[in-house]
This record gives sequence, C-alpha cells and structure tokens, in this order.
Amino acid sequence: MSGERPIGVFDSGIGGLTVVQEIRRLMPGESIIYVGDTARAPYGGKDAETLISHGREIIKFLISKDVKAVVMACGTSSSTSYEILQKEFNITIIDTIRPAVSELVRMAQLQKIKPVFTATSATIKSGLFARLFSEKCKDVELVSRACPLFAPMVEAGLSTDNPLLQFAADNYLSDLRGKVDTLVLGCTHYPLVQGALVRTLGEITFINPATATAIATKDAITPSRDKKADIVYYTSGDTESFSELARIVLKDYSLTCSKQSRITSFIAGLK
Amino acid sequence: MSGERPIGVFDSGIGGLTVVQEIRRLMPGESIIYVGDTARAPYGGKDAETLISHGREIIKFLISKDVKAVVMACGTSSSTSYEILQKEFNITIIDTIRPAVSELVRMAQLQKIKPVFTATSATIKSGLFARLFSEKCKDVELVSRACPLFAPMVEAGLSTDNPLLQFAADNYLSDLRGKVDTLVLGCTHYPLVQGALVRTLGEITFINPATATAIATKDAITPSRDKKADIVYYTSGDTESFSELARIVLKDYSLTCSKQSRITSFIAGLK
Repeated sequence: MSGERPIGVFDSGIGGLTVVQEIRRLMPGESIIYVGDTARAPYGGKDAETLISHGREIIKFLISKDVKAVVMACGTSSSTSYEILQKEFNITIIDTIRPAVSELVRMAQLQKIKPVFTATSATIKSGLFARLFSEKCKDVELVSRACPLFAPMVEAGLSTDNPLLQFAADNYLSDLRGKVDTLVLGCTHYPLVQGALVRTLGEITFINPATATAIATKDAITPSRDKKADIVYYTSGDTESFSELARIVLKDYSLTCSKQSRITSFIAGLK
Repeated sequence: MSGERPIGVFDSGIGGLTVVQEIRRLMPGESIIYVGDTARAPYGGKDAETLISHGREIIKFLISKDVKAVVMACGTSSSTSYEILQKEFNITIIDTIRPAVSELVRMAQLQKIKPVFTATSATIKSGLFARLFSEKCKDVELVSRACPLFAPMVEAGLSTDNPLLQFAADNYLSDLRGKVDTLVLGCTHYPLVQGALVRTLGEITFINPATATAIATKDAITPSRDKKADIVYYTSGDTESFSELARIVLKDYSLTCSKQSRITSFIAGLK
C-alpha cells in the first residue's frame, strides 16, 4: 500500500535530474517529488555544517510530502551529510557516492583500470570516495580531482559545447589524458558536461552514479503498482529559470516538467 | 552619540570587502559589522524574490546588532532589492548601483566616453543601471554585459592571474577591445578580477563603485568620534574558508580579520 507514495529526490539544483532520468527509466511507475535548492546553489564549495543544515531542511520538507524514501541526488550532500542525516531521520535515504564506489569496485575487480574520481571541492575534501574505494581495492591507484566550476557553469546554463566549460575541463584534467581510462562523475551535474570531458580526455569509460543510485533505490523501496506516475518539481529559487533549465536538461529523456512550485516553507524559514 | 554605533555592510560573500576597504580608508574611525552570506552565494543568477528574502534576513540581523546604517555592498542586491527593502526598514540603506551611476554620469559630462557596464546576470536583467544612466545621459551609448562566472570564480578562490578567469574575461569581453574606454565594475567582486580585465581590454578607465559607495555612506551617517575602530565579520557559511579567503582579499589593505563568527540566527532559521 505504501508503495504508491512518491520517492523524494533532491539536489542543489538541476544536477539531480540526471538521477531522476535513471529512476524513471528503471521504475516508470514511481511518482517523484523533486527539490532543486537553487536559492542556495551551488553546494560544492560549502562546508559540511551548512550542507547538513540545508539537507535536513529539505528532507523534512520531503517527509511532509509523505515520500517513501529520499534520494540524495547530490554528490556533495552524499559525501558530507549522508551518515548524519540517515541517523537523524526514520526514513530510507539513498546517496550517490556509495553506489558509485560499488560500481568502480566491481569494474576494478573485472579488469585493470586507471581511474579518476571527479567531484566538487567539498566532496574531494571529504575524502569519502577515495577512502571507501581503497578499503575494497587497495592496490588500484585512484586519482581524485576537484572540478569546482562545473556545477556553477551548468547551473548558469552553459551546455557541454560551451568554450568556457571546455576550457575549465582542459584546465582541470588535460594532464591526465592517456593516464586514466575510467572517470567517475562524482557530482550529478557532471553527466551534463560529459562532451567536454571526452574532448579533454579522449575516449574513456564513464561511471555515472545515476544508474547505480537508481538501482539502489529500486532495491530499497516497496514498488508502486501504478502504471503511470507523476513528477512534481519544487525549487527554493526562481520557478521560471528552474523550469527553463530543467526542460533543457530533461528534453533528451522525454520527461516534462509537469508542475513546478516554489517551496514556500523554505521561504518562510528564511524570512 | 549614535555615531559610535557600527556600520553594517553585507554581500553574498567576500566581494563586499572591496567596499569595506574604501570605507576604512575614508572613515578609519568607523566600526563595521560585515556579513558574507557564503552559505547562499553566489547571488548573481538568482531571482529578485529570493534575493529580497536573503537581504531582508541579513538586514534584520544587522539591525539586531545595533548598526546605524546598512551598506548593501552587493551589486546584485542593490539592483534587485534596494528599493523594496529601503521602504521596509526604518534605517538608512546605501546601495552600490546608484553611486556608480552618479560617477559614470559625472565622467560622461566631463568628456566623451564609450562605457561598458559589467555585472551579474541578475543585475543586467534588472536593467536598473542602464535605465538610471540613460535618464541622465541619453546621448551616451552604454554597453551592458553580464559576466556571470566572475563572482563564483572569486568565491572559489581564483586570483586575477588564473587562466580560467582570464579565459572567462576574454570570452565575455574581448569583442569590446578598442570599442570601449570605460568599464563599470558593477559587482563588488569585480575589482578582484581587474588584472584579467586589463589583459582583455587593454588600458581603460575603471569605475569601482566602492569609492562612491563609501562617500555616499559618509554623507549618510552621523560620524563616529572614535580614533580606532573594529571590524567584526560574520558568515552564514564556513568560518574557516571565509576567513582564509577574506585574508587574501584584505591583505593589500592592511585590514585583518579581527574576528569571525557564524551567524547563528541564520542557521537556526534554516533548521
């Protein structure tokens, strides 16, 4: 019965839509409530205490909407806030970092790889991905690389063909060309800059945590028996710009922004 | 008597420190309470409603600290929120856009200039600077140009010599080389990227609103009779990173971060 309740998904902005896409592909009958915290985006340069506070507020909001589980579709929240917030709330929370670690571990066990983990400054600073990976694969050398401007650039509407984004990609990663063969997109915005990454690094294998996160979500929830499901989008910022950017991101996936609405409880909290 | 109360100054992050520097230079006896809203920075891509809400909360905080006036040391707040918030609060608010307009008007009246106004997307979108300027100088052609990534880059710690910042400057402005001779730094972060702007545009005249804003502040307040004054810094985000970045920005001006403290009322408001 509880299966008909929606899944809550949140991110600092539109990056988490890459996870929404995978959830829809895997579980088309699941309704979703999405929160993009654009009034406080980006998250990637912020400290753990701030991010935990933001995450706490969003999870409370999602629980008030009667979600059956919460997907933390943000690499930065996942690496700084997941453990603390999972302890605080009596609801299943799925993060994006742990599924990504599992996928890289699985790949490393099948073949010899030279991986690089890309993420925001806060995620790299947390050291979580590298620590969890090395616990399982201590002999595989993992490069970690912060790419702090990718998410702000995506939120600013830059597409993967934008020269500024390309320059940033070259700046962050060109020294690794030929030295790595597998790249973990450790921030949910990064699948949206994949074109630039290919131009910088050549043909490499990408690990997009969205897929593994959607699978982890499927394993964690009681499935809906509905055939058809809705997505409702909320933003703490401007509804119109969020909607416009979200439509661009989602257009390849045939998802439409069926409804957007400002999170009034956020605004009230800030007044 | 009320002259001994501090001046409140706020910005999305560290950009407003360029205004603090000018206030200190002009009025060394004035104490200052500075708020950098780094937990919600950058402001430049956000909508007016969100920015008004953020500004309202900060002004309430500053009033609770008994400031005698509030300097909105943020071009984005100044262009989207000043009018509404000045009406709401019974305290003098000084913005950065109107003083910058006055300075460009004065310059245009003295000589023939070819000006460009650079600012965040939200400021350009508001159209305020261009409108106020053209009311006074309808015959002077003004180019307006959004440079949305400068402030996020400065907040990410990029210095004016950083190649990524240079690339952004070239990307935004190189087509104007030789076509403009006067550039208005319409965001308080932009004085911190001035080196890159010179390399893109050649030797031009810069209008830094910080000076005119400090003069407008001096005109608006009852002066302190102290000889020595303190600055107290607050940030809604991480105290340590704010302090580190602020020290770099302030080092040329012999100002020290005498004290930093997280704005606890913000955090409480978000819980």
